[in-house]
Parts: sequence; C-alpha cells; structure tokens
Amino acid sequence: MSIAKARPRVHKHALRTLAQRILTGEVAQGQTLLPESELCETLGIGRSSLREVMKVLVGKGLISSRPRAGTVVLSRDQWNILDPDLLNWSMELPPDPHFVMSLIEARQAIEPASARLAAMRASAADLAPVEAAYASMCINLKEKDFVAFNVADIDFHTALLRASKNVVFVQMSKTIGTALGYAFRMTIARSREPGGSLAMHGEVIAAILARDPALAQEAMTRLLNIAILDLGLSG
Amino acid sequence: MSIAKARPRVHKHALRTLAQRILTGEVAQGQTLLPESELCETLGIGRSSLREVMKVLVGKGLISSRPRAGTVVLSRDQWNILDPDLLNWSMELPPDPHFVMSLIEARQAIEPASARLAAMRASAADLAPVEAAYASMCINLKEKDFVAFNVADIDFHTALLRASKNVVFVQMSKTIGTALGYAFRMTIARSREPGGSLAMHGEVIAAILARDPALAQEAMTRLLNIAILDLGLSG
Repeated sequence: MSIAKARPRVHKHALRTLAQRILTGEVAQGQTLLPESELCETLGIGRSSLREVMKVLVGKGLISSRPRAGTVVLSRDQWNILDPDLLNWSMELPPDPHFVMSLIEARQAIEPASARLAAMRASAADLAPVEAAYASMCINLKEKDFVAFNVADIDFHTALLRASKNVVFVQMSKTIGTALGYAFRMTIARSREPGGSLAMHGEVIAAILARDPALAQEAMTRLLNIAILDLGLSG
Repeated sequence: MSIAKARPRVHKHALRTLAQRILTGEVAQGQTLLPESELCETLGIGRSSLREVMKVLVGKGLISSRPRAGTVVLSRDQWNILDPDLLNWSMELPPDPHFVMSLIEARQAIEPASARLAAMRASAADLAPVEAAYASMCINLKEKDFVAFNVADIDFHTALLRASKNVVFVQMSKTIGTALGYAFRMTIARSREPGGSLAMHGEVIAAILARDPALAQEAMTRLLNIAILDLGLSG
C-alpha cells in the first residue's frame, strides 16, 4: 500500500532530476545518455519506471530514442521550453539571462495585444479576477506586504491574459506567471519597493472597462516598460 | 528483432489515438478513463506500454492520475495546446474555429515584434534562410506551383521568427509553422491564387536589411493583414 502510494513521487523525482541534468548541460546536447542499467542505479528506480521517464522526456523534446543510436539529448532549439514542467524545472536552476530577456520581450508583444482583446470582448465575470487582483495589490502595498503584493501582481497579469479569451494567450499565461514569480524573487532579494507601477495597473483596468482597445493596449505597453524598470532588468 | 523495432511505432500510435479521443471530446473533460485492462485491449498494447502512454499524456497536461480517483481528463485550459505533438494531433482533426482565430491573433502579436527584433540583431547568417525562402516564393509563384509556394511561405515566417533570436519566439515558430501548414491546406482546397502578399514579404526583408526596426514591425503588421485576407479567414 505505502509502496503503491510512493511510486508516483519517485517517478516525478527521477523525471525532474534527469530533465535538470539535461537543462543545465551536465549531459550535453548531442550526447548519449548512460545505459539503462546505470541510469536505474543513479536515479534509484526500476527499468519500467525509467522507460516511463524517458517517454515523457521524448514528449517534451529533450531526448530522442532510436533503435541503434541509443538515447540522445536533442539540441536546445528542439526542447519545448514553454512546457509548464520544463519551465518549472528551469526556474529551480541558476537563471539564464538570455531566456529571462526573451520572456520579457514576449510579454511586451503578448500582454498589450491581450489587453486590447480583453477590452473588445471580456465579460464582467472575466474581469472580476483582474479587478480583485488590483484591489489586493492596493491593500498589500499599503500594508507593505510585498510578498502578497507580488502574488497579486502575478494574478493581475495572468487573469488579464485569460480575459483575452485567446486560447494561445491563456496557455502562455502559465509560462508568464511562472516567469513573473521568478523575476519577483530576484527583486525581493534586492528589497526594492515594488509599487512604482500600481497606478498604471489601474489605468489598464480603466481602459478595458471603458471598452477602449487602443488605450488598453497602450496602457499595458507603458505598464510593462515601468515594471521592467522596477525589476531592474532593462538594458 | 522485428518486434523490438515495431514497438516504438505501436506506442506512438496508441499515444496519438488516446490523445485524439481526449482532444475531440470523445472522452470528455472531467471524465474517468476506462480501466487499464480495457484500454490495453482497445489500444492493442500491453500494460507497461499503456503506463508509458499515460505518463506522456500527464506530462502534456491532458490527464491526471490519482491513487483513488483513477485517471481523469483535465479541463481544456490545462492542456498544453502549444505542445508540438498535441498541435500535430489537433491538426489531423476537424478544425476548431476558435483555436484557428486564436493562432491568427497570436501571430499578429508575435510576428511584428519578431520582425522588429530581427531588424535590431539578426546576423547575415540568420537572414539567409529568410531571403532564400522569399526567392523560392518568387520562383514558385511564377511557375504557379502553389504547394511549393506555400512551403516557402511557411519557411519565410518560421525563419524570421528564428532570426529574432528570442527563444520564446523560436519555440513559437514550430506552433506557427504547423498552424500555417493547416491554414494553407484549407486555402488550397479553395484553390485561390496565393500571391497577394508577395510584395509585402519583400518589404519586410528590405526593412530588416535597412536595420529599421519600426518599419520592419509595421511592414509585418501589414503583411499579416493581407495574408489573413488571402486566407479568407478575417472577420
């Protein structure tokens, strides 16, 4: 009974461990993985669990398994880096500045477009979580609870992406939420006051409620420029 | 020997079959999958293969496996719809108009931003495949080989996304390439002449070569507006 319960956790641990060895480059691109028997031993799992782990990593574009060639680490541009699991595992590793900058540029493209779409078609029910997140940001800033403020800030941005009703942007909201959590941890470490962009968040909501797509897009563009300066990540 | 070779193919077939049953809603969101023994029989695979299939589908956000509850289909917003495998499997099914429209909106946000970044930092080597794709479009239009024209058109857009050197956009290039191939198949079915946007493709390249980020962004915006009209997908 207790073994049956423990098994999925062992699988997850082995999956993350092997994925992170690839993500860090400890096992380099183009390199062949160790033989099954050795991997089973180092990961502390059985052969059938190892095969399950391998299939999942194939499915995420990290490795490729061929009859004669063995299991090879694919090149970085074949990795599904937007896969929520891969992203979570990446975020536990030292930051890759190129990836961090890429995410910021992606936000600058996606979030203003998303604000525009939300102004065009979000219902009151879609906007309620955006407004709730903004209210929570206001309260937590006043109480100087910066951790709760940042949680509310992430909620604001991911709820707004969902309010776009665009399924691609909704999917990206997970990626952007994870990346934001990571960026905020870096900011808290430098203990800067995070309130510089609060008023702009209010302007984005006002433009959406006024059903002004162009203004909503523009307000979100300005908000992101401020937020990026706040994070000390520009340039 | 022949069994060992056939096995990965059987696994892939079972994986796609089960994924597509979920994608079409044949097994609905929130519903529990059939017991292992029945699934093995209907999919024609053994128990260990089925478990590998299940882990891959867990990894792509389609299902969740819990000790007591069994294996449940997750809600659509938890599916990793940008996963290249899921996207390929979706494209074999009848089109979901909401998803098609979402992809177009995503292109309108991502591709102009990508053209802007390419104008800022793409090297001659990054731009060579974009120029080669454009040359191929010109030749194939003249020869009225519309299938080859469309392949070159997809190459143009995906090479340009790669030339942005933004790893998020590079990742999205696979999604956008697949979606474009799908859209073109619909266009070919209507046998429309696809050359309406050719000159604009040239203008995008000219702006990038002139290192004019704002003009490159604007040209790509106009190109997409024309291309979407060409596809008969607007409105």
